[in-house]
Amino acid sequence: MNPRNLLYNSFKVAVASADPLHIVPQHLPKPPKGRTLVVGAGKAAAAMALAVERNWPKRAKLDGIVITRYDHSLPTNRVVVYEAGHPIPDKRGEQAAHKILMEVKQLGVEDLLLCLVSGGGSSLLSLPLPGISMNDLKNVTNKLLRCGATIQEINTVRKHLSIVQGGRLAESCLAPILALIISDVNGNEPTNVASGPCAPDPTTYQDALAVLECYQIEKPKSVIKLLHYGAEGRLSETPKPRDIVFKNIENRVIATSHNSLVAAGEFFRGKGIPAVILGDSVSGEAKHVAKVYAALVNEIRQYGHPWKPPIVLISGGETTVTVNGNGRGGRNTEFLLSLAIELAGARKIYALACDTDGIDGLENNAGAIVRPDSLFRAEQLCIDSTAVLANNDTYTFFKQIGDLVISSPTRTNVGDYRAIMIL
Amino acid sequence: MNPRNLLYNSFKVAVASADPLHIVPQHLPKPPKGRTLVVGAGKAAAAMALAVERNWPKRAKLDGIVITRYDHSLPTNRVVVYEAGHPIPDKRGEQAAHKILMEVKQLGVEDLLLCLVSGGGSSLLSLPLPGISMNDLKNVTNKLLRCGATIQEINTVRKHLSIVQGGRLAESCLAPILALIISDVNGNEPTNVASGPCAPDPTTYQDALAVLECYQIEKPKSVIKLLHYGAEGRLSETPKPRDIVFKNIENRVIATSHNSLVAAGEFFRGKGIPAVILGDSVSGEAKHVAKVYAALVNEIRQYGHPWKPPIVLISGGETTVTVNGNGRGGRNTEFLLSLAIELAGARKIYALACDTDGIDGLENNAGAIVRPDSLFRAEQLCIDSTAVLANNDTYTFFKQIGDLVISSPTRTNVGDYRAIMIL
Repeated sequence: MNPRNLLYNSFKVAVASADPLHIVPQHLPKPPKGRTLVVGAGKAAAAMALAVERNWPKRAKLDGIVITRYDHSLPTNRVVVYEAGHPIPDKRGEQAAHKILMEVKQLGVEDLLLCLVSGGGSSLLSLPLPGISMNDLKNVTNKLLRCGATIQEINTVRKHLSIVQGGRLAESCLAPILALIISDVNGNEPTNVASGPCAPDPTTYQDALAVLECYQIEKPKSVIKLLHYGAEGRLSETPKPRDIVFKNIENRVIATSHNSLVAAGEFFRGKGIPAVILGDSVSGEAKHVAKVYAALVNEIRQYGHPWKPPIVLISGGETTVTVNGNGRGGRNTEFLLSLAIELAGARKIYALACDTDGIDGLENNAGAIVRPDSLFRAEQLCIDSTAVLANNDTYTFFKQIGDLVISSPTRTNVGDYRAIMIL
Repeated sequence: MNPRNLLYNSFKVAVASADPLHIVPQHLPKPPKGRTLVVGAGKAAAAMALAVERNWPKRAKLDGIVITRYDHSLPTNRVVVYEAGHPIPDKRGEQAAHKILMEVKQLGVEDLLLCLVSGGGSSLLSLPLPGISMNDLKNVTNKLLRCGATIQEINTVRKHLSIVQGGRLAESCLAPILALIISDVNGNEPTNVASGPCAPDPTTYQDALAVLECYQIEKPKSVIKLLHYGAEGRLSETPKPRDIVFKNIENRVIATSHNSLVAAGEFFRGKGIPAVILGDSVSGEAKHVAKVYAALVNEIRQYGHPWKPPIVLISGGETTVTVNGNGRGGRNTEFLLSLAIELAGARKIYALACDTDGIDGLENNAGAIVRPDSLFRAEQLCIDSTAVLANNDTYTFFKQIGDLVISSPTRTNVGDYRAIMIL
């Protein structure tokens, strides 16, 4: 198999190992005496719901509502799938979240709530507290997404503006709950995936205020006011770890970045190429992350240390991009172009970086592939690679040299997948 | 030995393996028929000159001039040591460089020029071309150092403004030349250390202009004018690879980052702790580099993969710091505080990062050490670590918690040394 196909197939393996249709069935409990309600939100919500439907005993009561991103639904029978806005929440998400809350409140102790949680759920499942309008929530979310705050920081604020997140959905439910979670966050803490609708929340109103202060976000006033009210003890806090609420609740993480990286590593080893995992939680500016890996690649090429070629370096987690230019591109293409520039056409090195959700940034690609002649081919087209990187126009770069990786939405999400193959 | 001492001693081993007094003697040639002139520039210049003096046959003719940084001289007998400005050049450097050029021009074919080159030499050995004043050179150097240009880019400009760099010192010399080089640059190319006074220069006036254009440096006008003249072919280019000039010239790299990292690795193995080298040419923003290594550390802690603890992760090269705050600190303390924050007090992890020249940034420390309780101890002192990092005040941070590594100038320079120990 050629290097390009090997890399592409390893990406498919990584995605498949987080595919709800493969992994959800083995985690389904026995139906309860009463009714089973399926709710959920995230990029994988429709696929998770379909997996439940297909594997749930025909005679057992099952219905539900899940919310997924536009273009991410699938044809289901018993569970209704709504599509809504991501990463900025919208009215349709709010309406669906309201329906979910109404249904959850009707459950009794003999029923079961099956909550299907995946990345993207924080904005998809948006139901602001009284006093906060959907516009206020959009506004503050937008500011948080652009200021460089971490996803944990953003979620600390969201959890304290929501009726359903930060464990508050669980608070509204009398029935036992099983939350199945596909994690796209570093550390795989249930509270950080989709802002943890059924998970204890260790953060406070005070923490949420501190985040807004840190990034100098002073509007909307309604948001600041509500958080101050909360911090003064005039509103109830999100439920905390060890709270009695969580007695009959299980938050079970069923897919992680690490699982996918391990599966990809086994794929390479099956093809006779050793592979190592350099971490499932890599963060940092994409183009700087590439420089660190380039130095390791050079060590391997020059000294055969710490590993002799052939070897594949696999990593996961989500890098960031600070946008200074006005080009098009996501963190994976940004990572790859920086890597290519650092390696300067070194022979026998191939790399792929893709988002496992199938969408790198805002474009139609999952990511791209770098080959030894990538820069050379760009030069033939009179493309100045360094200028492209400075302009954050890396999507255009890989499109022009024909090395984008295009996949449709994968309907799952365990963060980024990167593989550097040194032959 | 406790972890802190182990790390500190490994740093001393790394520095020792680049110590001119240890490594220069084995590279000294037989004295020529005629006179031997020692010239040189760099942070290691005085120590290299002393090493030559001590090991040169008493009866053979030897004299010379070298330029080192302020506070970096040593008591020599036969070679005169001048101190001058770094990283911004000054008048004293210009005067000494002029003397060096005059002496070199007096050499004949039976003499020998021994050129001692080390990091820092680009600014220490400054003799601008006619039409460029020392103030112009200071001015453009200052701008280049602050705009984010790489050291290669900065040197491309410097080489084309100098009478002695970019191989031009070699052009002025009739005698054979042996240049002994202590490399502080990625790739260890002779032309990139001290702007290669005796090395062929692959760059052109046109390249130098492109660097200034890229970073939008439009002054001083005398510099722009001279480079345009050069690009139009009205000035002679720096000598290029394969030029006849280089027939009797050897540029020999005698110390590198990699040698030092290997020595440190052997030191740890001697103490029963395995060590791996993750690259000798790591670049990238210091705090982002730390995030990539933190992810690897977490992989090792959580999964015992790719190595089981205990293990030491060693790396070299020079990271960068983009200054947004107004605090004090260098790239090594910046790296370490970011690492500490990412690791969040994880047990059994210790790290050291120091510049092998003994000076991290502009302060009196070589670097610092991180211990599992570093953040906790800072918290006890009411220090907000995240705010400190945002303010680039990392020197102050490690000073307050008492974990700076202070060493006097080491009089050598093979870039940074980082070691992360996972026990």
